[in-house]
This record gives sequence, C-alpha cells and structure tokens, in this order.
Amino acid sequence: MTARIKLGMVGGGRDAFIGGVHRIAARIDDRFELVAGALSSTPERSEESARALGIPRSYGTFDEMAAAEAAREDGIEAVAIVTPNHMHYAAAKAFLERGIHVICDKPLTATDADAAAMAEAVARSDALFVLTHNYTGYPMIRQARNMVLAGDLGQLRIVQVEYPQDWLTDPAEAEGVKQAEWRTDPARSGAGGSIGDIGTHAHNLACFVTGLRVESLAADLQSFGANRTLDDNAHVMLRFGDGVRGMLWSSQVAPGNENALRLRVYGDKGGLEWLQEDPNYLWFTPHGQTKRLLTRNGAGANAAAGAVSRIPGGHPEGYLEGFANIYAEAADAIRAVQAGTPRDQAMGLLPGIAQGLDGMAFIRACVASSRADSAWTTL
Amino acid sequence: MTARIKLGMVGGGRDAFIGGVHRIAARIDDRFELVAGALSSTPERSEESARALGIPRSYGTFDEMAAAEAAREDGIEAVAIVTPNHMHYAAAKAFLERGIHVICDKPLTATDADAAAMAEAVARSDALFVLTHNYTGYPMIRQARNMVLAGDLGQLRIVQVEYPQDWLTDPAEAEGVKQAEWRTDPARSGAGGSIGDIGTHAHNLACFVTGLRVESLAADLQSFGANRTLDDNAHVMLRFGDGVRGMLWSSQVAPGNENALRLRVYGDKGGLEWLQEDPNYLWFTPHGQTKRLLTRNGAGANAAAGAVSRIPGGHPEGYLEGFANIYAEAADAIRAVQAGTPRDQAMGLLPGIAQGLDGMAFIRACVASSRADSAWTTL
Amino acid sequence: MTARIKLGMVGGGRDAFIGGVHRIAARIDDRFELVAGALSSTPERSEESARALGIPRSYGTFDEMAAAEAAREDGIEAVAIVTPNHMHYAAAKAFLERGIHVICDKPLTATDADAAAMAEAVARSDALFVLTHNYTGYPMIRQARNMVLAGDLGQLRIVQVEYPQDWLTDPAEAEGVKQAEWRTDPARSGAGGSIGDIGTHAHNLACFVTGLRVESLAADLQSFGANRTLDDNAHVMLRFGDGVRGMLWSSQVAPGNENALRLRVYGDKGGLEWLQEDPNYLWFTPHGQTKRLLTRNGAGANAAAGAVSRIPGGHPEGYLEGFANIYAEAADAIRAVQAGTPRDQAMGLLPGIAQGLDGMAFIRACVASSRADSAWTTL
Amino acid sequence: MTARIKLGMVGGGRDAFIGGVHRIAARIDDRFELVAGALSSTPERSEESARALGIPRSYGTFDEMAAAEAAREDGIEAVAIVTPNHMHYAAAKAFLERGIHVICDKPLTATDADAAAMAEAVARSDALFVLTHNYTGYPMIRQARNMVLAGDLGQLRIVQVEYPQDWLTDPAEAEGVKQAEWRTDPARSGAGGSIGDIGTHAHNLACFVTGLRVESLAADLQSFGANRTLDDNAHVMLRFGDGVRGMLWSSQVAPGNENALRLRVYGDKGGLEWLQEDPNYLWFTPHGQTKRLLTRNGAGANAAAGAVSRIPGGHPEGYLEGFANIYAEAADAIRAVQAGTPRDQAMGLLPGIAQGLDGMAFIRACVASSRADSAWTTL
Repeated sequence: MTARIKLGMVGGGRDAFIGGVHRIAARIDDRFELVAGALSSTPERSEESARALGIPRSYGTFDEMAAAEAAREDGIEAVAIVTPNHMHYAAAKAFLERGIHVICDKPLTATDADAAAMAEAVARSDALFVLTHNYTGYPMIRQARNMVLAGDLGQLRIVQVEYPQDWLTDPAEAEGVKQAEWRTDPARSGAGGSIGDIGTHAHNLACFVTGLRVESLAADLQSFGANRTLDDNAHVMLRFGDGVRGMLWSSQVAPGNENALRLRVYGDKGGLEWLQEDPNYLWFTPHGQTKRLLTRNGAGANAAAGAVSRIPGGHPEGYLEGFANIYAEAADAIRAVQAGTPRDQAMGLLPGIAQGLDGMAFIRACVASSRADSAWTTL
Repeated sequence: MTARIKLGMVGGGRDAFIGGVHRIAARIDDRFELVAGALSSTPERSEESARALGIPRSYGTFDEMAAAEAAREDGIEAVAIVTPNHMHYAAAKAFLERGIHVICDKPLTATDADAAAMAEAVARSDALFVLTHNYTGYPMIRQARNMVLAGDLGQLRIVQVEYPQDWLTDPAEAEGVKQAEWRTDPARSGAGGSIGDIGTHAHNLACFVTGLRVESLAADLQSFGANRTLDDNAHVMLRFGDGVRGMLWSSQVAPGNENALRLRVYGDKGGLEWLQEDPNYLWFTPHGQTKRLLTRNGAGANAAAGAVSRIPGGHPEGYLEGFANIYAEAADAIRAVQAGTPRDQAMGLLPGIAQGLDGMAFIRACVASSRADSAWTTL
Repeated sequence: MTARIKLGMVGGGRDAFIGGVHRIAARIDDRFELVAGALSSTPERSEESARALGIPRSYGTFDEMAAAEAAREDGIEAVAIVTPNHMHYAAAKAFLERGIHVICDKPLTATDADAAAMAEAVARSDALFVLTHNYTGYPMIRQARNMVLAGDLGQLRIVQVEYPQDWLTDPAEAEGVKQAEWRTDPARSGAGGSIGDIGTHAHNLACFVTGLRVESLAADLQSFGANRTLDDNAHVMLRFGDGVRGMLWSSQVAPGNENALRLRVYGDKGGLEWLQEDPNYLWFTPHGQTKRLLTRNGAGANAAAGAVSRIPGGHPEGYLEGFANIYAEAADAIRAVQAGTPRDQAMGLLPGIAQGLDGMAFIRACVASSRADSAWTTL
Repeated sequence: MTARIKLGMVGGGRDAFIGGVHRIAARIDDRFELVAGALSSTPERSEESARALGIPRSYGTFDEMAAAEAAREDGIEAVAIVTPNHMHYAAAKAFLERGIHVICDKPLTATDADAAAMAEAVARSDALFVLTHNYTGYPMIRQARNMVLAGDLGQLRIVQVEYPQDWLTDPAEAEGVKQAEWRTDPARSGAGGSIGDIGTHAHNLACFVTGLRVESLAADLQSFGANRTLDDNAHVMLRFGDGVRGMLWSSQVAPGNENALRLRVYGDKGGLEWLQEDPNYLWFTPHGQTKRLLTRNGAGANAAAGAVSRIPGGHPEGYLEGFANIYAEAADAIRAVQAGTPRDQAMGLLPGIAQGLDGMAFIRACVASSRADSAWTTL
C-alpha cells in the first residue's frame, strides 16, 4: 500500500451534513488521512469542530490553512471543499495556486463569474480538480455507462431523468432549518434552486451514463413555496447530441420523495432503469426479451461495476460507498499525477472542471429558458 | 335485476384486440346482451365473426344495422364502436341520429373536423355518448380522485404523468403488424401517433384525478422509427388551471415498458402515486408522515373505490374489471336516461364528448406546439 | 361458437362472496348461461336472490332442482356448488347421479367420510367433477408449471409455499362476521381452519406447478384467536416425492397480509417465484444468470401462459380471469365429454376429485401430525 | 473526540472476504486504528498482507501477537478475530487472558466443546467479548426491535424468518472456491452447514427483534449438493417463549437468492416485515390500517433507528454501515469499561457470548432434531 494521502478540509463543521459525508467517504477505503481543517466560519468554532473530530491541525481561515500547509514538509496534498456554493471558488483558488489538489462539492460555484474564474484557476494550476458528482460513483451507474458504450442499448433515443425530493414542501427556510436557509438563498446558492442543488446531479448523471451532452433545453421553473425566490420545482425538455431527446424533472416539493433520483435510458435495442434509492439494482431489457434485474456484483454485473464494489451481491452498498468511490479514484489520480501521469489522463472517469462548467451552463440555460417562456436555449 | 341492455357492436371482428376487450367488459357485470354486430369491413367477414362469437344478428354495414335495429321492437338500445379512429364519427352519427346510445372507443376521431361534427351529432341527439377512457374506471383511480377532491393533498402543485410502451421500437408497421399499420397511419389515426393513442389516456387520467384542465402546453414530438410519419415519442410540459404544473411523456419506443401508465400528483399536504400495471395499489404520503400503501378494498380504501370493486383486497382486479366499470356505469346511465334522468346528470363520472374534445384539443395543441418549436400553446 | 352451456348454481345467494365470483368467472368467456339456482337456505330467499340476479328458474332445494332440471329437455348441463364445505357432498351427489356435470368449490368436503362418499359418487357417475382450485388458472402459474416440466429448473430440490392473510387477527367470528362464523366452525368447515381454507390452496398450487405429490409432512397448528377451535396459523414441513423438500405456512392472523399466496420453487438449474397479489409477474433465475421478470403475454411468456391470457402484457389480468380460466376449461371439457371424449382425458389440467382427495388427505395429515407432536405423517 | 482505539486483527489476509468487511466497518466511524495483525497462516503471507494494507505491526501467530501487544505501552486495546470458525476459540482465549477486548466473527466456534471453553474464557476475563451478529446493527432492525418492545405489534404470535442464498447450488467446494471449501467442511465449520453459516444469523435476528428466545425446535436438514456432508438447506419450526411460534428457512441452494435474509413478525395489533437486501425499508401494518413504508431517517423513524444512522433518508446506507454500527458500539463499550462501567452494562445491545452460546445451541438442536426425525428438541 502506498501511504495515505494527507487531506485538509474547508467547511464541514458541526451541523453541516455534507462535510461528514466527505469524511466517511475519504475513510472507507483508507486512502486518505484528514490532518488539517478550516471547518467553520470562526476560528473558535473551527477549532472546536476539529478537536471533536480528532483532526490535528485547525486553522481560522482557508487562506491561512493553504499558506501554512503549503509551507510544511508534511503538509496536506489535497483539500476537500464542502462549504456553501458561493465560497467554493475563493477556497479552491487558494489551494490550486499552491499546487494542492482540490476535491470540491458541487455545484461548481454560485455564479457564472465565479465559475469562469474557477476554470482559469484550474487551467493555471497543475493540481487536480475533482467535483464530487458522487452519484457517478455508484457501481450500477458504472455498469449502465459501460453497457451504453458497449452498444447494449443500440442507438440511443430517449433519456428520462428526475430527482424529486419533498423537504421544501413546507417553507422550511422560514422555520430556521439551516440547510433550507442557504439552499433557498440566491446569494449563497446561485441562480438555481432545485435545479442547482439536485437538477445538476440529474443532468450530470444523464450525461455520464450516455456519454452525450445536452445541446439545448426548454425549461419551466416554478417556486411553489411562499416567498421563495429560487425554483423549487423544474420541468425541462432536453435535446442531447445524436438526436437523443429527454426530459428532466427536479423538485423539492413532491411529498413522498426523499432522494428519488431516477434515470431511464432507451435505445433501439434496449432500455435501462436505475433508482438511487435502490442503487444495487439495474433493470435492463434487451428489446424483445424479458426484463432482467442486474445486481451489484451479481450475475450479469460487468467489470466496470465490479471495479467499484467491495462486497458480494445481496449485501447492499449505499450512498457512502458510492461517494467513497469518487474519493478512491481521486486518490488514484493524485498518486498518478505525482508519479508523472498527465493530469487529464489521470482523471479517468472523475468529474472535474468540465462537468462543473456543464452544470453551470445547465443552470444558466434553465433560468434563461424559463424567463423566455420556455424557449429552446443552447448550453 | 332490471333487464340486460341490448347491445350492438361496430368493428371488433377477428384480429381486433379492442373489440374483445369491450365484449368482456360488457359481460362481466351482466348488464348487457350483445345481440347485433357489423364487425368487419365486408358482410362475409362480419357474418363469420358474428357466428364465431354467438351474436344473433349480423349486418354488412353499420348503416344497415342502425336502420334495421332502430326499426325493431327488440332492437339494440346501445352500440359499442370499436373501429379504427377515422371511422368513429360516421358510425356514431348513424346511431345517435336514431336515439341509440353510443359507447365509443377513444380517441374521439381522427380529425378535428370529425370531432366537431361528432360534437354536433351528440348535441342534436338525446342519446348518451360514452367515450371509453377506461383507465378512469380503475378503483384506485376513483380513490385518488376522491382524495384530491377531499383535500387530502392540500393545494395541488405538480402532476407528473407518463405512458411508455415499447411495441413500436422496431418498425412493426413495416413488418405486417396490423395494429401497428393503422396506428402509425395519419389517415386512420389522425395527427397524433403516441400522443393520440396513449398520450390522450395520460392527459385524460391526469385531468380526471385532479379535476383540472390543461390550459396550455409546450410539446416536443419525435418520430424515431424509420419512415414513421407520426410521433412515437412525445415530451410535453403542462400548465393546468390553479397554477398547477406538470409533465407528460408518452412513448411507444421505450424498451422494457409494456403499458406503464403512471400518474403522480403532489400538493402542499401530500402526494399520490399510481401505476396502471399494478392497479390495485395506490401510494399516498401525507406530507411529513410515512408513505402508505393503499390497496383496493383494503384498509384505507374509500367509498369511491369500493363502489367499483367486486372482490376483497389482495385478490387483484385488472384491466378488464376497470373497463367493465365503465360499461356498468354506462348501463346505469342508460337506464337512468330511459327513466327520465337528464342526460348530463346521468353521465356521472363517465367520460363523454367533452373529454373527447379535450383529447382532440390536446393532440392538436401538441402537434401545433411541436411545430412551433415547443411554444406554449393554449388548448 | 358452440352454444353456451346451461348452468345451475347451489348456494351463492346474497352475502356470499364466492358465489358472485363463480358467476363472473362463468360469464367472462361467454361459455355458460346461468339458468337455474337454489341459492339460499330457504325458498323465499333463494327466489329473491335469483330474481335480483336475473336467473330464470329458482328452486327451494338442490334436490328439487336436480330432479326438475334433469327432467327438462332444456335442463342444466352443469351445476356450480358454492355452499359452505359441509354441504358439498350432498349437493354434488344429487347432480352427479343425474349425469349433470359438477363444478364444486374447494375444499372437497368438511369430513373425510363425506370425501370418501364423494369419490364414490364421482366414480359411479359419467359426469365431470371439477374442483375450483382457481389459482391454478393464473397464466403465470401455467407458465411456471410448464417451465418445471420442461426442465428449466433442472432437478427440483425445494418448494416454499405460503398463504398468509390477516382477517381473523381479531375474533371476527365473535363479532357477527358471517364468513368468519362458518369458517371457524368445525361442523361447517371440517377439521382444518386456515389449513383447510387456504392451506389446501397452497398445497394444491405447489403440487400443480411441480407435478409432485406431498408424501409426508410434519405440522404444528395453532389457534391464536380467543376461543377459536380450529387452527388460524399453521407451520408445516413437507416431503415431496423425488427427494424434494418444502415448507408451507398458512395464516389468517398475520397483519398486513391480504391474500399473499406465494410460491417459490428451486432446482439445481434455476428458481421461480410467484406472488398471487401480483399475478402477472413470474420471477425466473436460471442459476448463475440474472434474474428475469417474466410478464403475462410479454416476451418470455410461453404457450401455456398464452393459452389462458386474453389481453396483451402490461394490461393486468386478475383473480377473476384466473378463475374464469377454470370455467373456460370446464366448458371445453363438458363439450368434449358430450362429444365422446373419455372423462379423464377431457379433464386436461382441471383439478378434480383426485385433487380434492389430496386436499382432504393434506388436512387430515396436518391435524394428525400436529396432535402427534409434529411427527412425520404420511398422506 | 476520545483517541481512536488501537485494534489488532487475527485472520483476514488476502482472499478473505470477511476481514475486509471488518476493516471497513472499523474505519467508517473513525473510532479504531488498525495497528497490528496476524493475518494469515504463515508469517510470510501475514507480513505481505499487513504491508499491502498499511498495518504497521505484523506477527507470525496470534499467540505471538497477543504476548507482544500486551507487553507494549501502546499495544492494541482490542482485537478482531476473523478466521474460520474452528480457530475462534484459541485466538480469542489468547487475548481475553491478557485483558484485550475481543471482537469475534460468528458463529462462536466450530464445536460445542470450544464454545463451552470460550464461555469460560470470557467469564475469567474482564475484557469485552463482542460477537459480530452484524445484521442487528441495521437501523431499521433497531427500529423494529423498539417497536416490538413498545407494544406496537401487541402480543406477539408469529415469527417467520429466512435466509436463502444460492452460491452452493453447484458443488463450488469441489471446484476450488476457497470460501466454499471451508464452509462445507465440518472440521472447520462445525456441525452446521447453512444452519451454522446463515441460519444462526436468522435465529439471532429473530431473537434480537422480538426479545424472545427459541425454546424448542423441530428441524429437517438436507444436503442437496453431491458429496456434501453438511446441510445446505434447512427447514425448522420454532417455539419461542410466550407461546410465539415461528419458522426458519436457511438455504444455500436456492437460485435467485443472494443474501435474502427476511424477517416477519406478527402480533395481535400489527405486523412488521424487513428484507436485508433492501435494508433502509421497514414495512409496518397496524392491524386494520394501511401498510406503511418506514424509511431510515424518514418520517416515522424512531430514535433507536436514528441513533445508528449517518445520513438522511433516501440516501441508502448498507451492509457496511450496519456492520460499522457494531464496531461503533463496541468502541463505546470499550471506552465505558475502561472508564469503570461494569462489563455487562457496557455491552448495551451488543451481541456477545450469550448470543454466541445461543447460536451454538441452535445449531446443536437443529442437528439433533433432524437426526431424531424432526422431533421437537429443546435448546
């Protein structure tokens, strides 16, 4: 085993859901060691969180951390950025400039300006920039992607993707739910509400599995919650390359849905269906034959799925293992780059700046199309 | 028991799927007696089919049948019209003019001109005109409608409806499949392909359950099958009354889908989900509570569902029983009208000319919107 | 079409669930005409029920009916017996003696003495005796049986069958529920409670699909309901021929189960799973391959399933259609016997006296084994 | 955060499935640090495995490791024993004697003699002995247990538990599959085949959720695989305390089943159903009401489930997280004991020697009953 990668973290203090997820994901395959953090908005709270988590070095700000860690012989090699969206860019830049690899939560940034600046910062750096579109780490999503690429579905025709939730059905942001506050605040989340938070996941997943890009879209965004500025429900029609058409629905006001991200892909030779809440299953119908239930590491699982599975079929892996696959591949990529592999080649299937910009373009096009009475808008 | 209603049938000879369905549906509750038919396009084939089916009186044409039956003391009281779409109007007119009640397969007609003429023919007649939007007969759909009306979902917000099939994935119409031939032929089916054949079902079901009408839509229709004129896949964004938004997807080229009509309705107090292939179940989530699985005639079933159920929960009823509910209610309506109840009142929940015209408007708007680059189009 | 078979009915008046089921089942395929009945325990109530159902001839007793109908030129050709179990024998005998074909609800009789007498009555008669083990009429059960016979599962090893319900969880018989009263009364139901009412269905289905007989069993019967004499829950271990082993569970006190009859069969080459509440599906796993979801009339459906299906896959058929398949095959058998086919040959797959005696032997063995501290008991 | 617990491991070298599971489980919540190992049967292979896994200290034998670590100031505080069953006792004893806490894979031992000796070794030691009946760590199993204890099901009546697999359908042990070799070898696995490997899990889970013990059982064990000595399929009827009855089925020859551990519990007020392959769901039916689908951390989840969940509902946790819960609770228990809490009190819900002995008694009774023609046998 090569040594564990020394990791820092920006954001992710108490009350922050996604920080804990990143930490577990980094630990599952034992490829990282979390040694430094700037976890909260004040030095005191950061210190307190770091101590509670057993992280040896705590900093008051990410700038301070970037400077100090870059200066250490045993400083961090990579940093996880898990702040609200509007802080992604400034934090990432500080580390990229110092050659520290960045693993950044999605979406890329809150604004297009920040996104462009982020792209420049990545271009100027030699460091890796990984965007945690974690759903691409699920084994059966890898299986699906490989099946599409292998032609098991024939010529693609239709992509139906949706991501409904229900946690904003009531005006949670007015009731002091911290997650709800920043996610419904354009200043911190950007121009997209549901479309930015979860629609980008759906968009990314559809593109990842099909290997296609969305060329244009027609969107109808809605805000059902009282006094809510950003969309909490979005209807989008999609035109991919190669004449493939699709629909995307994201919602945070659909009671009975927790994280019901569902992807269906159809070609002239077969169809696939996957649901994030039951991620160990992939339905596959070769046209004219019976439907098959592929299981992770079960009969019918392909090498792409097997490569990111840990335990036999029938013992379910979940969200954290899918997320951990992104971290494990980031570890591989970091070690590869350190050993001289070109950065682009090292990225492999990892989502990065390109996917981040695609996501921003997706949000921008949705908002623009919706304002233009759902006119078809190119990305 | 009141006497069985004497029924005739136009269309529905050998090889015709839907004719057999109507006959079983008419028999299940023992309210009809099929005594006359003009089942095929030639007198010989009609006669042959009638004999095979044990139907006493066979006619060469529907005109002949209308005239002869109207003249008999014991002539038919109602007629089922189960021809391809382009023949609905002429046949219906012949019977409506003679005061014979009409039970007509959907969609209403193949053309808008025929639809308008049909509306006039209905207006001029005292006879009932029932359009067999049979999915509205499923008990759990009745349950869903009543729950929406009772406010169990609160203020409605979102309607997601879809009807994917896969039987036209290959160019079946070029391979001599009779059903595929006429359904992909504009002259016989009308301007809508999948949108007319199954999209209208999805549209009708969404309106039936919510009690709302689609006010405008933005559509993107596609024809994936080689040399196919009509759409075989349709993406539609919907704006209902009361600010309710929705999406509709119909497809006949989605491998792995047989008749996967699915309706999901969300309000600010709860959500419902129903799938035609598993029709005895209705998922209901009161917002903030656990998801419940309502079963036909099980605990939680309401009176609206119970009224159209025959057997206890756990013993599944299916498509034919749902269809039979339309026939049973048509029988009630016929007897009521015969006893002096005003026609509109007698119709109750039965789909009729209004729903047929709505369906035609839906097809028309889909085609127009799609041609206008998916511009929002009013119905 | 040959003429409809003239049918009579014994039992099945108001409040009787199963009588209505038989009537619908007889109608669905239009092979029978219900022309006579002795529907209730008094002539007045029988007459009232017959009138309400539109049955032309009503009799005060089955004896009267048997005599009168046998004497008519246009008398009934077959009779459906749908009384409580303890009356099956006397009624059946009256018709069998007169050469009138009998379609009898299951289980065969309430007592072993009656069962033996019934067997003699059948032996003495030329008439057909059909026992409505209706679950054998489901298309996917026919599919399963043919797959087993065709060797798709290889050498059979294990059969797991269960039939849980929940309607006797509370002491419904003490609360005036008529169904609960007679089904928990040994005098009317026989020695088996759940084991007689639904365990016999599970036993019959397992034998039908596998083509095997249960040779011995070890049973543990329980009565959880207060003051309940008969079993309301039964655990049984099974030894079939050919070294196949199995388990059977029947229960009427398992909350959350409506009619959850489930059959699983495993061999050295594959496994099958079927659930009555979702009867249009059959799960099949060829060992070492992916699980397949076979659907009624879908890809992968075999001829045995197709022969008893009416409508395309994805449009569900249910309990009534499965029941109707027994009636349709009974109609075929009756016409065949009338045309000279030997009775045994005409029976085809229809359950008859042999299956009825097997069911009685199953009940008897369960009760005996349970009394003998679950000792293995031969059937 | 208190310091991580220093952990050693016995067994778990290359090719060993369960060792990797224990390591991930120990890492997920960051409570352990794996610092020493005797991973394989030879010092060379142990060393090689340790190096590959980044474990600092490798020993040739567990004895050597126990002695050396006990002597170190910074020696291990706990050891995970993940060898085949027949080596559990000797290894555990070596650490227990030195006051090192033991986390041992199940079943307890291969022989009853070893089990008794293990019990004595635990009794003589002050160290904790945790047996990884990991399925008890699933959140919805905790939820189920608490619901039963809270009386949500009323007076319990019936427990149906099963654990079918299919990986021994073919004679894998004759084809060089290492897992199959030792699991079918009585010398290494003990007297139970499927009953020891997975039947004990089913037995343990049923007892954990109900709070009851199996008092007697009647078993029928089979060996379907050619030349297989141990059972690969087991049918068992159960009598719990309080008059509760049940059935248990374990199988390793049921094609189409991966790890389909399923538990159903019924009382006079409600029923529960849980399936290991979909562990984030728990079905609950309060008698006479609709069925509810409880989800991990969703509406309806109770505090017992929440306490062992990491992420929101709809983002599935899996087998590894359930296993990690056992490790996290073991960490709590170790720290508690170190702080002076009495050992029994510190164990909380953790399975330990008592559950291990119960499992051995279960295996013993199954084998004895099956040899005695399925006679009821007390545990």
